[in-house]
Amino acid sequence: MVCHEAMRMSILITGGARSGKSALAERMTLSLAQNVIYVATAQAFDAEMATRIGEHQARRGPEWQTVQSPRALLRTLQDTDHAPRLVDCLTLWLSNLILAEQDWRAEVDALASFLPNLQAPVVFVTNEVGSGIVPENALARQFRDAAGWTNQRLGAACQEVWLCVAGQPLKIKPHGA
Amino acid sequence: MVCHEAMRMSILITGGARSGKSALAERMTLSLAQNVIYVATAQAFDAEMATRIGEHQARRGPEWQTVQSPRALLRTLQDTDHAPRLVDCLTLWLSNLILAEQDWRAEVDALASFLPNLQAPVVFVTNEVGSGIVPENALARQFRDAAGWTNQRLGAACQEVWLCVAGQPLKIKPHGA
Amino acid sequence: MVCHEAMRMSILITGGARSGKSALAERMTLSLAQNVIYVATAQAFDAEMATRIGEHQARRGPEWQTVQSPRALLRTLQDTDHAPRLVDCLTLWLSNLILAEQDWRAEVDALASFLPNLQAPVVFVTNEVGSGIVPENALARQFRDAAGWTNQRLGAACQEVWLCVAGQPLKIKPHGA
Repeated sequence: MVCHEAMRMSILITGGARSGKSALAERMTLSLAQNVIYVATAQAFDAEMATRIGEHQARRGPEWQTVQSPRALLRTLQDTDHAPRLVDCLTLWLSNLILAEQDWRAEVDALASFLPNLQAPVVFVTNEVGSGIVPENALARQFRDAAGWTNQRLGAACQEVWLCVAGQPLKIKPHGA
Repeated sequence: MVCHEAMRMSILITGGARSGKSALAERMTLSLAQNVIYVATAQAFDAEMATRIGEHQARRGPEWQTVQSPRALLRTLQDTDHAPRLVDCLTLWLSNLILAEQDWRAEVDALASFLPNLQAPVVFVTNEVGSGIVPENALARQFRDAAGWTNQRLGAACQEVWLCVAGQPLKIKPHGA
Repeated sequence: MVCHEAMRMSILITGGARSGKSALAERMTLSLAQNVIYVATAQAFDAEMATRIGEHQARRGPEWQTVQSPRALLRTLQDTDHAPRLVDCLTLWLSNLILAEQDWRAEVDALASFLPNLQAPVVFVTNEVGSGIVPENALARQFRDAAGWTNQRLGAACQEVWLCVAGQPLKIKPHGA
């Protein structure tokens, strides 16, 4: 492991819908090794989601190994801790945990606590969902809070945090760097 | 009043839901003095809001004096202009003014016009609510515009503006500093 | 054409509702020439929109020539390529294309492809609409994706990208500059 890689063991990339997060995460992950792992948290419940998953897969090349991990993300990261991973995305993972009525706070805490022990890098993609008007739906408000809390917890644990806006990456941690 | 404090008399902290705004505001306010004032604009109409208020209070320690100020914020800032204040948050204050059918634009203008005369610092927390899809509800659109207008007015009047993303603070005024 | 202007031929300004995008775009456009063109993409379908259009017009002075261009934006930019243009805004233009069932992806591509050939500067205003909770309405989700995709495409093609927050401009492309 060279010094440069050692300094980029955990990266969080956030932004709004279609802001360029996944493409940035793919470039960053590929910059770390020749063979990399794509950890997909999405579950294709409907045609719309299947289309989006297909679009994302079509953009990736043969250097990517794909692993499905809708909920047991910590286990997946432990089992694949030999090559750079791209986790796309934390927001769907959180949604899957909540739908399965798992203790999402405990899962997020365990994930964040594992990051200092990483042997290979991980790049997380997440979403900004809390900058619109407060939703009328109580479940939507709870999810919005959970997603914000998750982003905060992972943002604190990761060595780098990036915000994507209009396809442009903005480094917000460490700032001024 | 030392020079450093004199340069940080008015600070606006914005961001999405659960982006780390309140925690940052508390750290900044406590960095300014040993005894500080928490100006709560929230009104606990329901259990959800009461829970959130309780969570915020639990995080604060005995160095905080709490003042309730759901609408007469300028008066509160005039009456407490001897110690650093944290106002949490402008968005709820604006909501309270609109619900009470007060002239919110005049109130925002008066508040912004008072800032150059401050004798003690104030840290405002506000919210980004205008980066989602345009709401179908006309009242929601009006509130969204009012909140954006309020943030602009206070952003222009405050000496510092910070944006929180995933718990990470990003200074946007003065920029490049 | 002086060097400074040549370096600022295409600028994209994004941000949430009422974040100060239009005012920034107007200042930037006026800094480029004494006589400038306002390209309005809005169509006043209702009183609310008419009010907003009127407010924007009232802020502008006699140095502005106004051109209406709800859909044929590329043609408008080709026809006015002798003076700085402010396009306000891309999000409404995209919405007009979708409502008219035009091929919006092709239109966005053609627009982005034209930018390297510009003879006079253009400042685009667009909107962040993808940082709220995922909309329940399928059409709203499609529009949100289309708007994000458009912002990415134009963000890549423009020489500068700015984000407005609480009225404060933040340069995100080129970053660090």
